[in-house]
Amino acid sequence: MIDTIAFDGDDTLWHNESLFSMTQDRFRALLAHAVDPADLDRRLLDTERANLRFYGYGIKGFVLSMIETAIDITDAQVDPRALRSLVEFGKSMLEHPVELLDGVAEVVERLSSRHRLLLITKGDLFDQESKVARSGLAERFAAVEIVSEKDPDTYRRILERHGVEPSRFVMVGNSVRSDVLPVLAIGGHAVHVPYHLTWAHEHADPPEDGYRRIESVRELEGVLAGM
Amino acid sequence: MIDTIAFDGDDTLWHNESLFSMTQDRFRALLAHAVDPADLDRRLLDTERANLRFYGYGIKGFVLSMIETAIDITDAQVDPRALRSLVEFGKSMLEHPVELLDGVAEVVERLSSRHRLLLITKGDLFDQESKVARSGLAERFAAVEIVSEKDPDTYRRILERHGVEPSRFVMVGNSVRSDVLPVLAIGGHAVHVPYHLTWAHEHADPPEDGYRRIESVRELEGVLAGM
Repeated sequence: MIDTIAFDGDDTLWHNESLFSMTQDRFRALLAHAVDPADLDRRLLDTERANLRFYGYGIKGFVLSMIETAIDITDAQVDPRALRSLVEFGKSMLEHPVELLDGVAEVVERLSSRHRLLLITKGDLFDQESKVARSGLAERFAAVEIVSEKDPDTYRRILERHGVEPSRFVMVGNSVRSDVLPVLAIGGHAVHVPYHLTWAHEHADPPEDGYRRIESVRELEGVLAGM
Repeated sequence: MIDTIAFDGDDTLWHNESLFSMTQDRFRALLAHAVDPADLDRRLLDTERANLRFYGYGIKGFVLSMIETAIDITDAQVDPRALRSLVEFGKSMLEHPVELLDGVAEVVERLSSRHRLLLITKGDLFDQESKVARSGLAERFAAVEIVSEKDPDTYRRILERHGVEPSRFVMVGNSVRSDVLPVLAIGGHAVHVPYHLTWAHEHADPPEDGYRRIESVRELEGVLAGM
């Protein structure tokens, strides 16, 4: 029997990667006169990965990595006005409306009347808090946990704090790497709901079995009924 | 009787504002050939304040505000290599060793054997977690709370979660605005330990009474004994 259901935020409850992807399109266009788009993508991903240990996940680190990439890839020949645009791209992302995925509002509302719901989301504290508040979903969750990394220890700590047995816990999220593998590792259940975009760094091969995969959160209640 | 003592992190347990101040010196020097230092300071503070609603508190937002200020104040005539230096200044800050204030290690160790200690710190989740880990103090605290803003609601929520009566709670910190006023507002106790530097935005006039002020954390046990 499942008593506690946790949801990931970005790309599970609301659109997120699409905003990064759209901004990266603008980044490419901004430098298209000087830089090959494929080169730029590669350099940006390398820079983001190398900077994870400084910045963690989130929009501010993404903007700083775009600025660094733009300067380095042009041998510092980039127009400072282009860099100023990158700063503005970041602000647009930070104040972009939170758009729920299809079905989320209804499914979360119905589940909240029968289960304890948690929201476990990774990234920048200030930005994530703001998104939770703007999502209109905050009231549905018994607790919101914003974490810097989703590994087995993180999940173990959260379940302990809320007195939840792993065997009665299910995590619902779009990332195999962050929402499925570490939860299975501590003996919990996981439901994978892929998003149409995944940041290359988040990619991980799904396990052979031991978890469920659905195409839309609308299928979640059916899957839970069978658990 | 006090049973729970909470400490602020930045500039209470470890040096922080001195690192921002040192970086701002380097920022001034970098643009000294083109910009009056006093103008630059003013513009940077205005930019940081205007950007708080996007970035919250922390180093990444500070770097983005320096970049924005450098471009705007030079009418985009700044050399991109100077902007690249600002990115590196930020990384240096993020990996700078955590230096405890004088007396902190001993006082926190002694108090932890007789009281429940909390660490309540404001700012960027990833950076603050990293500083707590590197401080060597994590084991002394029953819980670490990283928050995006320190207002009365924040403190009320934390005390509720830990089952602490405000009348039995004391907050120790360097900021009148963040560590003293909101705690007094919910009926708790506060001990102010000023740091020699305060970011202009954190400035607030201290209340007439209702709190204690000490010059060093070494005086804390004496003050607590009288509570």
